[in-house]
Amino acid sequence: MTTVPAMIGEEAAKLDADDPLAPLRDRFLLPEGVVYLDGNSLGPLPAAVPPVLTDVVHRQWGTGLIRSWNEHGWWDAPLRVGDALGRLIGAEAGQTVAGDSTSVQLFTALSAAAALRPDRPLLVTDPGHFPTDRYLADAVARLHDLEVRHVPPAGLERFLASEGHRVAVVSYSPVDFRTGELYDMGALTAAAHRAGALVLWDLCHAAGALPVRVDDLGVDLAVGCGYKFLSGGPGAPAFLYVARRHHEALETPLTGWTGHADPFAMAPGYTPAPGIARARIGTPPVLSLLALEAALTVFDGVDLTRVRDKSLSLTGFFLRCADELLTPLGFEAVTPSDPARRGSQVSLRHPHAYGLVQALAAEGVIADMRAPDLLRFGVNALYTTHQDMLTAAVRLRDVVRRSAYDPAPQPSGRVV
Amino acid sequence: MTTVPAMIGEEAAKLDADDPLAPLRDRFLLPEGVVYLDGNSLGPLPAAVPPVLTDVVHRQWGTGLIRSWNEHGWWDAPLRVGDALGRLIGAEAGQTVAGDSTSVQLFTALSAAAALRPDRPLLVTDPGHFPTDRYLADAVARLHDLEVRHVPPAGLERFLASEGHRVAVVSYSPVDFRTGELYDMGALTAAAHRAGALVLWDLCHAAGALPVRVDDLGVDLAVGCGYKFLSGGPGAPAFLYVARRHHEALETPLTGWTGHADPFAMAPGYTPAPGIARARIGTPPVLSLLALEAALTVFDGVDLTRVRDKSLSLTGFFLRCADELLTPLGFEAVTPSDPARRGSQVSLRHPHAYGLVQALAAEGVIADMRAPDLLRFGVNALYTTHQDMLTAAVRLRDVVRRSAYDPAPQPSGRVV
Repeated sequence: MTTVPAMIGEEAAKLDADDPLAPLRDRFLLPEGVVYLDGNSLGPLPAAVPPVLTDVVHRQWGTGLIRSWNEHGWWDAPLRVGDALGRLIGAEAGQTVAGDSTSVQLFTALSAAAALRPDRPLLVTDPGHFPTDRYLADAVARLHDLEVRHVPPAGLERFLASEGHRVAVVSYSPVDFRTGELYDMGALTAAAHRAGALVLWDLCHAAGALPVRVDDLGVDLAVGCGYKFLSGGPGAPAFLYVARRHHEALETPLTGWTGHADPFAMAPGYTPAPGIARARIGTPPVLSLLALEAALTVFDGVDLTRVRDKSLSLTGFFLRCADELLTPLGFEAVTPSDPARRGSQVSLRHPHAYGLVQALAAEGVIADMRAPDLLRFGVNALYTTHQDMLTAAVRLRDVVRRSAYDPAPQPSGRVV
Repeated sequence: MTTVPAMIGEEAAKLDADDPLAPLRDRFLLPEGVVYLDGNSLGPLPAAVPPVLTDVVHRQWGTGLIRSWNEHGWWDAPLRVGDALGRLIGAEAGQTVAGDSTSVQLFTALSAAAALRPDRPLLVTDPGHFPTDRYLADAVARLHDLEVRHVPPAGLERFLASEGHRVAVVSYSPVDFRTGELYDMGALTAAAHRAGALVLWDLCHAAGALPVRVDDLGVDLAVGCGYKFLSGGPGAPAFLYVARRHHEALETPLTGWTGHADPFAMAPGYTPAPGIARARIGTPPVLSLLALEAALTVFDGVDLTRVRDKSLSLTGFFLRCADELLTPLGFEAVTPSDPARRGSQVSLRHPHAYGLVQALAAEGVIADMRAPDLLRFGVNALYTTHQDMLTAAVRLRDVVRRSAYDPAPQPSGRVV
């Protein structure tokens, strides 16, 4: 059915044959016959997760019962898993906590930033930021009487040069979730710091996909989810990083009992725990949290610079495939071709994005889309192959050639 | 080793033989040789959970991947599980959402209450309330410029008679987590309403243990955890109930994207969803959430009035055992003997509570304690037997008689 241009096919085979990370694919239980390019939305199931969950459910919960809070380390899990996440974003131990959702962590991070810069009236964020980042910025601004300014990343340095002295915190993602464009975390962090502002990075589309160096860059705060490139499972707990220098002054809005200095004393008033532990809130969802912990072992012994190299190889190759096979059919690549400006996904614009993604899924290629017109192809260097990318491009070409898709737009309430 | 008074032993056997709920014990995978009286802290593993989790992990996540958000109902799970929880607290469908922790839900509930009663400066809560309820009350009061007043439940009606016109919300638990005392939800709710105040109930120690009728009583808001009498697993998601009459005006502080009216439109501004869906926050921890959903099937076909009857039989019997076997050894029952004032636990005071609970666990009886001097024995009528209660009392007596325990107090940071 599908014909593959010979030259590109050979290139894919050669790139995969030379791939030093190829063995890592066995760390995932990928379904047969599926090309999965939506790991930037929900990572696939790591092979390490099912046996751990079975142990957690039967031995720890079922047999250990309440004793497992001590004996199986449930109580310490938010900090222990936090440290494991920290290692993936360049954070020394003791600065990262795992738990809750990204939205809750954003609320904590933005509220804490406002409290750390009480005399500065502006909260600056990306007009293209993921919705929950924007909604929580608005919510925190209302509560703390701040004004939200929307400045695209490309204009942030200029904005800070003039208004920076009024800025409490800038809240950005290094990767645009729609276009896959990668911004310069170092330059933007430095610009914010020159202005005396704090920096909050949302690492949902970066953690596990590329090297991040929060400590080295002097980042103040960071959040991220556990279920995209970290493959921690649907709705896996998120994380919050707070640089150690801010811990002593850190005020969190959600003063739940597990963040207390002595939780089991059950004292009448809240005394925050020392360090990042004060950012703990309530009792964490242990099953989801320990599934995430098991999932993170897919990174054991893995050098993220290698992951980054392969990711760029995959996305670069896909851009070449798209240029040859899809651009002539009306697709437009919106992800930068410059590797330094490219995250770990490629987005293609087409007016019938929703129907095309559905048709592709029926052909065994799972991607996703963002309304109204972007098809997203996420790559995870731990399991994605160049052959996967070629298959996706060829099948998408064929779907369009055969007009084998429904041009209707995305219905409301459907997760794509 | 242990001698059991003949009369009490016969009574336990007869009560268990006549117990219509006895077959429900098979709905749990209880470890052999353990008497588990800490289900008021962490419920045991329901037999329905492991096969569901296996399906969720392998078939839904592993094979279905991102498609399971639609095809396996992940997206709707917070509302679907919310409705299942609602049925256990007397809430008609569409008023309860599951997700996050009790602490986060308390923050939402108290913030929403403050916004619904903007001209009233007082937030009234129990000085003996669970720590996280107190800490979050303080936090919300600071944010909304409210004053917290601590009024014991016994004094609440009198307080409201004089100060009620200034009260925005009263925040209480129907069951004291330390003593097991049960308060009159109906009377306290009515008293608050006479004063024009809202009522928030924390149902952590009530949901699943006794009939609760939030709709019938006109309760405004309620929260609760999923992991005590609901046996949803360690850190199982919590729930938030908001009476339908408040939905249209409901303002939530954590405006996460999943509470948006059209989440996948990814609009720049937050427009709350209609109904309780606006209380959704971020992406829920699906593994923990669906484990909770499976756990709730232990209540299928179960009449909570029967559960209440048996719970009172168990706690009443234990109080009689304690009176005979433990009071002479220096224990004092602090749980009311009046059944109408008794939740689903019995608490005994003893200066060496921590060491005694440890020694009991070594004897196969798992209870817990609350600092400094309360031993807690929680009963769950779905699996606890009168023989369990007698065993607990006899072994505790024997531990004391033999002085086979360490009198040291609770170390910091240990979950008991």
